[in-house]
Amino acid sequence: MDDQREPRRRRAGGRAGTAAKRGTGRGQPPWRLVENLDRPTEPLTPEGVQAIHEGALHILSEIGIDFLNDEALALFRQAGQSVEGQTVRLDADFVTEMVAKAPSAFTITPRNPDREIRVGGTSLAFGNVSSPPSYWDHATWRKIPGSRALCADLLKLSQHFNCIHFIGGYPVEPVDLHPSLRHLDAISDKLVLTDKVIHAYSLGPERVEDAMEMVRLAGGLSEAEFEATPHMFTNINSTSPLKHDWPMIDGCLRLARRNQAIVVTPFTLAGAMAPVTIAGAVTLSVAEALSAIALFQYVRPGVACAMGTFTSNVDMKSGAPAFGTPEYMRATQMAGQMARFYGLPLRSSGSCTANVPDGQAMWETSNALWAAVQSGTNLVYHAAGWLEGGLVASPEKFVMDCEVIQMIQRYMEPALVAAGPEEIALDAIAEVGSTGHYFGVSHTRARYETAFYQPIVSDWRNFEAWAADGMHWTASRAHLRVQEILAEVPAPLIEDSARGALEDFVERRRAEGGAPTDF
Amino acid sequence: MDDQREPRRRRAGGRAGTAAKRGTGRGQPPWRLVENLDRPTEPLTPEGVQAIHEGALHILSEIGIDFLNDEALALFRQAGQSVEGQTVRLDADFVTEMVAKAPSAFTITPRNPDREIRVGGTSLAFGNVSSPPSYWDHATWRKIPGSRALCADLLKLSQHFNCIHFIGGYPVEPVDLHPSLRHLDAISDKLVLTDKVIHAYSLGPERVEDAMEMVRLAGGLSEAEFEATPHMFTNINSTSPLKHDWPMIDGCLRLARRNQAIVVTPFTLAGAMAPVTIAGAVTLSVAEALSAIALFQYVRPGVACAMGTFTSNVDMKSGAPAFGTPEYMRATQMAGQMARFYGLPLRSSGSCTANVPDGQAMWETSNALWAAVQSGTNLVYHAAGWLEGGLVASPEKFVMDCEVIQMIQRYMEPALVAAGPEEIALDAIAEVGSTGHYFGVSHTRARYETAFYQPIVSDWRNFEAWAADGMHWTASRAHLRVQEILAEVPAPLIEDSARGALEDFVERRRAEGGAPTDF
Repeated sequence: MDDQREPRRRRAGGRAGTAAKRGTGRGQPPWRLVENLDRPTEPLTPEGVQAIHEGALHILSEIGIDFLNDEALALFRQAGQSVEGQTVRLDADFVTEMVAKAPSAFTITPRNPDREIRVGGTSLAFGNVSSPPSYWDHATWRKIPGSRALCADLLKLSQHFNCIHFIGGYPVEPVDLHPSLRHLDAISDKLVLTDKVIHAYSLGPERVEDAMEMVRLAGGLSEAEFEATPHMFTNINSTSPLKHDWPMIDGCLRLARRNQAIVVTPFTLAGAMAPVTIAGAVTLSVAEALSAIALFQYVRPGVACAMGTFTSNVDMKSGAPAFGTPEYMRATQMAGQMARFYGLPLRSSGSCTANVPDGQAMWETSNALWAAVQSGTNLVYHAAGWLEGGLVASPEKFVMDCEVIQMIQRYMEPALVAAGPEEIALDAIAEVGSTGHYFGVSHTRARYETAFYQPIVSDWRNFEAWAADGMHWTASRAHLRVQEILAEVPAPLIEDSARGALEDFVERRRAEGGAPTDF
Repeated sequence: MDDQREPRRRRAGGRAGTAAKRGTGRGQPPWRLVENLDRPTEPLTPEGVQAIHEGALHILSEIGIDFLNDEALALFRQAGQSVEGQTVRLDADFVTEMVAKAPSAFTITPRNPDREIRVGGTSLAFGNVSSPPSYWDHATWRKIPGSRALCADLLKLSQHFNCIHFIGGYPVEPVDLHPSLRHLDAISDKLVLTDKVIHAYSLGPERVEDAMEMVRLAGGLSEAEFEATPHMFTNINSTSPLKHDWPMIDGCLRLARRNQAIVVTPFTLAGAMAPVTIAGAVTLSVAEALSAIALFQYVRPGVACAMGTFTSNVDMKSGAPAFGTPEYMRATQMAGQMARFYGLPLRSSGSCTANVPDGQAMWETSNALWAAVQSGTNLVYHAAGWLEGGLVASPEKFVMDCEVIQMIQRYMEPALVAAGPEEIALDAIAEVGSTGHYFGVSHTRARYETAFYQPIVSDWRNFEAWAADGMHWTASRAHLRVQEILAEVPAPLIEDSARGALEDFVERRRAEGGAPTDF
């Protein structure tokens, strides 16, 4: 049986262990950015796109949106927009003109330039789960608080898997670190344990400024080099309905002024913080995103901005949010149509409602990940490791999700769908005719090693071989795989000078007390 | 823990049990045929479609295909085609002309006319798993042989779920029934325990003729009524590469002469029975399907025929077949492009390689089911209950798959993607403004009961509520749901006269010894 109480036996591994070792490191596909070959799925008619666009502009010009940030209010006034108290009403022309200044694609370059990502067009990049307070401890079947050590393990998985292109927020909240100092240690861990693009939270001026400085130091960049092009990004959520909070806007303004990348992701749960209808929830989401992006483009024309979508539904019986639902999929596809309408890159998510890495978790996550693909999403946030609506991180789920992501990458390889004479292979078909098989023919021998996707945690053995090896269900195999990866994943190279500068900075800021926690 | 050894505790149910009862019967969406709203995903360029078409015709005209059926060989000779021994070479014009006679859409009408299905166009229908010899016994965690009783349970699930539109082959092989009599009892069970469209195996003249007669009697139809329009269907596989066996072709010819529906599904595993390249495997599959469909159209112009696709890859390490892979998804989408090119309805499958209803099973099955949607498939065979590459049937997996299928149905509801003024809901957005929430507003109250998909086995409660209820993973919840459904599902109505005629027929044929088993 799938006995979760036998870690020793599980660690023993047997053939599962061998298969696992085959899968790690060398076994996985190389780092590459994915080009999305497929035409997006577009549930909205052109009239529907126009109606949502006009609805969003109507919301911003007639109903108005609150910015709980005095600097933003002053900037809107300066731009000749209507400001009453904290409520801003924006001219349709102003919004359209400002949003048009945003680039349709941009790059973000981490300390290892080979890990630069492109955001926009057909580019499709995946990131780890971000910000769960808790962690699924598969060995004890308990939900435990996040810690710096657990966060580090998830960062190592994020570095290990080539299909993970960027590092979002903390993959689990290191609650054992004091809030005033947490960002220093956690961002330092991100910059040392990974060499990929990282995110910084917009949670007050000190944290944002510290994060930008740490990214600059880790990359060994001058001020000018840092500001020449995006080297990091932040992601903010509006407080739906129709509200932007102070620290989120403050952080974005600071990044905008230093030419770093900004993702604006309203969290519009249909039936709760947004209309119960999907088109209504998407319209509200678009309005909230456009208002912030217009502000950032006014402050720094051309600064890298992406539109985020996080529209799902609630269970109308309990009010609990649900993810990976049909409503979620369609909302994501609709948001993709709107992002293309505005010429903005799109961010969506992998997500699920399930509490453990089981069947429900994987059909919900598959729905979310494929909806991201179908929507033309450029940045897939929370793509690996998410459980319980984002409240729990799981390394087992991380590995299982990476299997799905790797299959999406393989699915997008042009060679897979090529149909030239070499692929149609009439000579091989004539050679085999109606007898024998294709294992031995030269056409097969020349291609079989790279012909098909090689799994990392899927078990393709027959029932008897699988049963003889201990009847490990997927989550148990993933648990074993996690232990193997963490035992062997090497830390990425970092220049001693850069590392030293980073350590000195953290030391100094720690001595200064880090960031105030009174907001 | 997810202890599979505590059936009593699981049966007790608790809140899971309550939730389960909410989900059964009344809770599920009503019977309806799904219209696929989405533009198909088309990996092949128009040139690629043309190249595969020309490749398939080249195979049939130059390489040839074997028909191990004298009647077929005589018919091809009569049609002026080249026949050497059992190898047939078909003129491109003959194939094109014959295939053009096939209808692009047709109906199949079971004994309950309300359960008629349309095959073709944007219609999307789902059927149960077919033909596994074994059964996953979740209570004991053993793989056990199929039986008439287990088959009947799966037929009851197939009848219960409105998202299952047709009954394929036996959902598990009733190996406790003697092969000579098996078809009589098993088809009788299909016709009594369900009122949906059924499939009959092409396994020799007696079985096929018995099946047609039983469908006719169960429907209370005259010979003329039976032959006026399709009331059942068969599905055949070619013996790839390039071979059609005697009983398959014999059965199809018998159905064709009585105007019943035929699905031709080559089973082309890339790298084994087909080229290692997906385009090559699809080309071989198309050639094999066209050759049989051309024959049936020659015999009865306009008879209902669908093209099937079952192209996947093997694990090149072990040679074992793999399903729900990226290669499988692209092959299915390519087959959809070819079916539309020929104006033929398409059949594909739900499938997976996993041995148990776990995470791998659900990402593989999700890949297969969404590929069916993306390919424009009309008939999704094996859509619910399949494990271990089709060697194992599982009622738990059946329920889990039905959740995914119901979500696909919900996903395809036009109302979900409507974007008129009522859906964009500017009045509600103005009413709520930047304060409060949408739970209470009239726009929500008027819609919330039907606004969102309601799950049957998904658990959307938070971790704590889920844990307090016994930490049941998806398969355990599905196991509980299966027991509840089987306890309450009513047998469909059947006319006493029809039932009596069916029983008399089975009695007579049993007395005659059923079908010979010496082929």
